[in-house]
Amino acid sequence: MTELHIAPLDHSLKGDLQQKIDLKTKPIGALGNLENLALHLGLIQQTLNPSLNNPHILVFAGDHGIAKENLVNPYPQEVTYQMVMNFLSGGAAINVFAKQHHLALKIIDAGVNHDFGDLPNLIHAKIAKGTANYLMEPAMTARQCLDAMQKGAELVERVYQEGCNVVGFGEMGISNTSSAALIMHTVTGMPLEECVGKGTGTNNDHQKIKLQTLSKAIRLQNHIDKKDPIQILSTFGGFEIAQLSGAMLHAASKGMVILVDGFITSAALLIAKTINANVLSYCIFTHCSGEKGHATMLEYFKAKPLLKLGMRLGEGSGAALAYPIVASACAFLNEMASFDTAGISKENE
Amino acid sequence: MTELHIAPLDHSLKGDLQQKIDLKTKPIGALGNLENLALHLGLIQQTLNPSLNNPHILVFAGDHGIAKENLVNPYPQEVTYQMVMNFLSGGAAINVFAKQHHLALKIIDAGVNHDFGDLPNLIHAKIAKGTANYLMEPAMTARQCLDAMQKGAELVERVYQEGCNVVGFGEMGISNTSSAALIMHTVTGMPLEECVGKGTGTNNDHQKIKLQTLSKAIRLQNHIDKKDPIQILSTFGGFEIAQLSGAMLHAASKGMVILVDGFITSAALLIAKTINANVLSYCIFTHCSGEKGHATMLEYFKAKPLLKLGMRLGEGSGAALAYPIVASACAFLNEMASFDTAGISKENE
Repeated sequence: MTELHIAPLDHSLKGDLQQKIDLKTKPIGALGNLENLALHLGLIQQTLNPSLNNPHILVFAGDHGIAKENLVNPYPQEVTYQMVMNFLSGGAAINVFAKQHHLALKIIDAGVNHDFGDLPNLIHAKIAKGTANYLMEPAMTARQCLDAMQKGAELVERVYQEGCNVVGFGEMGISNTSSAALIMHTVTGMPLEECVGKGTGTNNDHQKIKLQTLSKAIRLQNHIDKKDPIQILSTFGGFEIAQLSGAMLHAASKGMVILVDGFITSAALLIAKTINANVLSYCIFTHCSGEKGHATMLEYFKAKPLLKLGMRLGEGSGAALAYPIVASACAFLNEMASFDTAGISKENE
Repeated sequence: MTELHIAPLDHSLKGDLQQKIDLKTKPIGALGNLENLALHLGLIQQTLNPSLNNPHILVFAGDHGIAKENLVNPYPQEVTYQMVMNFLSGGAAINVFAKQHHLALKIIDAGVNHDFGDLPNLIHAKIAKGTANYLMEPAMTARQCLDAMQKGAELVERVYQEGCNVVGFGEMGISNTSSAALIMHTVTGMPLEECVGKGTGTNNDHQKIKLQTLSKAIRLQNHIDKKDPIQILSTFGGFEIAQLSGAMLHAASKGMVILVDGFITSAALLIAKTINANVLSYCIFTHCSGEKGHATMLEYFKAKPLLKLGMRLGEGSGAALAYPIVASACAFLNEMASFDTAGISKENE
């Protein structure tokens, strides 16, 4: 992973942006969070006229060694590759929502346990055919971890070169709520029980076994340095999570707007933030997932998500659903009339 | 107001709709509130394949006698007509959001205190040039109230005839949060303090005077029959609120999807619901306004709004912002693949 520079947000335009917002034909503050969002977009892009160009959703898919044990997830590991095929044929939720909002959708094989052969619409960035099982050994080597982060960065660079300045991140990987929970616990120090949810399961017994299994993983890997994000990511991560972390850091270094999705992408952001906290300045938290742990993680980020619809699907679906709200913030700032130009009386003193 | 029939929702398709939702390529329940929404749309339209056709936002504007006293609102009454002109020239927030989501926007003069002359894009449905001041007398006569409701119904009938099956309702009227608060207090019996918010003001002193003024209005009109929705509406309503109530009842009678916006449209719905409670079956509550009282009113309706963005603008802006989420619910139900067709393994037993 090459060194990167992420500029802290320059707040010098804040006054001018706030004035532009306040002069729009509406009572002061009446557009609520949209106004904060418009301000944020202006500061990220350093302009009074922000724009969202060539928006993308990047979905990173990877498999997890732990999934083979059927201890943490009710779905078989094959569902990861089957869902990748579903993405490619347009049948998944993220396809529907990306199409609805004209978001370019890229599907990335970060490390799925399947030979896809030559599929033209799949981006091949496979690190290995799934991670190792963290009940036995670290999920990946430090080398693999850094390679994955670098690949994630390169994929963002590619869409950036195509004029994209706003990118939503999604993922697919059977058992990856387990990885995310382990990362959350290790980075934040919160009790594991608060980090482990049902994932894709619907069954309380499954969840109990999942928690026992992940407690065991924590005990077995207790020697790791909890201040070292690369070691945490290597030990518990998935390849898709590592690519997400690298992708987010790179997007921030390019001044792109980052749409953070749910529990797993937020765990990737925890790692990214530990590497460089400035990444957070470029993030819009799109929704609060129904997955247990995500609300707490958002509090840890001091984030106020745009949506809270009880969704817990991943794939970048929350980011896609919130995209029009981000676009609305941009649109009102650029397109609404001001009191002066519209000839409207202001508030009495 | 002619008699109308609003069918209670027929739930016979519920099982089939739920099965269709559950067979989509996602974990059971993973699309959260979108799944409830898809089910609701299917039941309203009595089909497994709901569709949103020719969506409209209707914005009703009216003036209020009370506004002339400068006791309840910091903006002068002229802002109502000035904002109508702003709607017509495309500069208001609702113009921006309606354009963004391809919603047809209709602006209706329900009773603005201004002679607009022959403006081709304004729908002329003026009952009178503003209501009377409820500190002196009822805001309107029963005749005016019924006329206004009938006009609202006719306007909905017109868009229904143009193939519209989903309609968001908005409003504009300086001082109409006061009307809405008085209606809320009278219909629900909740303390007036819980119903009165800042409206468009930003000033605590304004709010105190507003509360005192509205308390006085309640004392003066204490003789009215609190079970009679037409009397409540006539006493405290605006013409835009009365047209909204009539419009909502008619939309429900035609099986249209109703997108409820914020505090004032919800007050209009309180009246409509008192006339015929079946109207609620056709309503989607789009957002929780930042205006004090709306959250409580939504609880009264047992409603779970889609958005909570702290917006308090009216104009149908919340309905417009939430529209893409409603469209997403419709789209996933129609367009996502099912487990069988996508060849994806289901949950292990």
